[in-house]
Amino acid sequence: MPASKPLARRGVLFVLSSPSGAGKSTIARKLLTADPDVAMSVSATTRPIRPGEVDGVDYSFVPVDRFKKMAANGEFLEWAHVFNHRYGTPRAPVEAMLASGRDVLFDIDWQGAQQLYQQEGDVVRIFILPPSIAELERRLRSRGTDDEAVIQARMARAANEISHWDGYDYVLINDDVDRCFTQVRKILEVERLKRKRQTGLIGFVRSLLK
Amino acid sequence: MPASKPLARRGVLFVLSSPSGAGKSTIARKLLTADPDVAMSVSATTRPIRPGEVDGVDYSFVPVDRFKKMAANGEFLEWAHVFNHRYGTPRAPVEAMLASGRDVLFDIDWQGAQQLYQQEGDVVRIFILPPSIAELERRLRSRGTDDEAVIQARMARAANEISHWDGYDYVLINDDVDRCFTQVRKILEVERLKRKRQTGLIGFVRSLLK
Repeated sequence: MPASKPLARRGVLFVLSSPSGAGKSTIARKLLTADPDVAMSVSATTRPIRPGEVDGVDYSFVPVDRFKKMAANGEFLEWAHVFNHRYGTPRAPVEAMLASGRDVLFDIDWQGAQQLYQQEGDVVRIFILPPSIAELERRLRSRGTDDEAVIQARMARAANEISHWDGYDYVLINDDVDRCFTQVRKILEVERLKRKRQTGLIGFVRSLLK
Repeated sequence: MPASKPLARRGVLFVLSSPSGAGKSTIARKLLTADPDVAMSVSATTRPIRPGEVDGVDYSFVPVDRFKKMAANGEFLEWAHVFNHRYGTPRAPVEAMLASGRDVLFDIDWQGAQQLYQQEGDVVRIFILPPSIAELERRLRSRGTDDEAVIQARMARAANEISHWDGYDYVLINDDVDRCFTQVRKILEVERLKRKRQTGLIGFVRSLLK
């Protein structure tokens, strides 16, 4: 058996969380572009679609009744109420992506990360911190799309999100987006090397010892 | 607090194990040369010094009586009998290296890895496999220093060592020493990013939230 052929492995479930403005979305996008083995979990939500958003790409936009039914049927890996809307991770597409041998990236908050971990156990949780609160506020304001009340609400929510940093396996400080992206890529590469995820190792070791 | 200044962190204890001839020593040497933050734990042994070996570098060579006294006094993190000689990891130098902020590399076998893990808990265990048994035998014979009986004994011991592959966190296949070395370096880099080892994070997060 040639070792240069990669062994079969179980996909990595990994969560990227951060307060809004810490750079998580940029890093997720770069990762999806750079690595075809990574697929993104698309959350379902009951909030209205915004201009520029694409249903099934940014979110799956579903009516409240349908969301409630899915939750009742256990069709979510995790779900929560945030800002008067419901957000959740549908189970079926995640299982399909894992079955096709891909890693699955979750862009969810600390509550979602906690629920997903309780459901699945083997989840790699990465938290991205801003270099400072002043820099976080600057990034939020530089978007120029939100009024003052929304910015203040986001800052309050950011502080709450940051206070849950200790529920994560890795904590990165995004003072340079390329450096932070490289760290996320390395974490994923290394998590793939974990014995427990290399399902092909049993057969390989057997071939060594026979 | 500038995030570009690395936060305080707890050193990583990490074990490299492999059957003799799988390339572990080469990789350990490359790592010590490349990374000044990595220090090597020097094992104590009762076996006689061989030509070319340096006391305190390759091993600390100690008389049997002294070894037994150290073991009785709890001065070893782990120790074992192998091939009629005793080998052990003295505790004090490891604690001194950790206190100086360095990671500590252990070149020990599966029994040592198991004992060290039981003692310390937070140990990163890496196992290096040869690409094939034929290649392992070729490497052992190419040294040209051992007679046939020694080679047969090493091959038997290699099979025994390999059979304990599932006691490790990471398992690498050394079919290319540079590739395998890069993987070991990445594992170390990523393990340093683990939240639990970044002791400076508490203060950093406090500065964000104040």
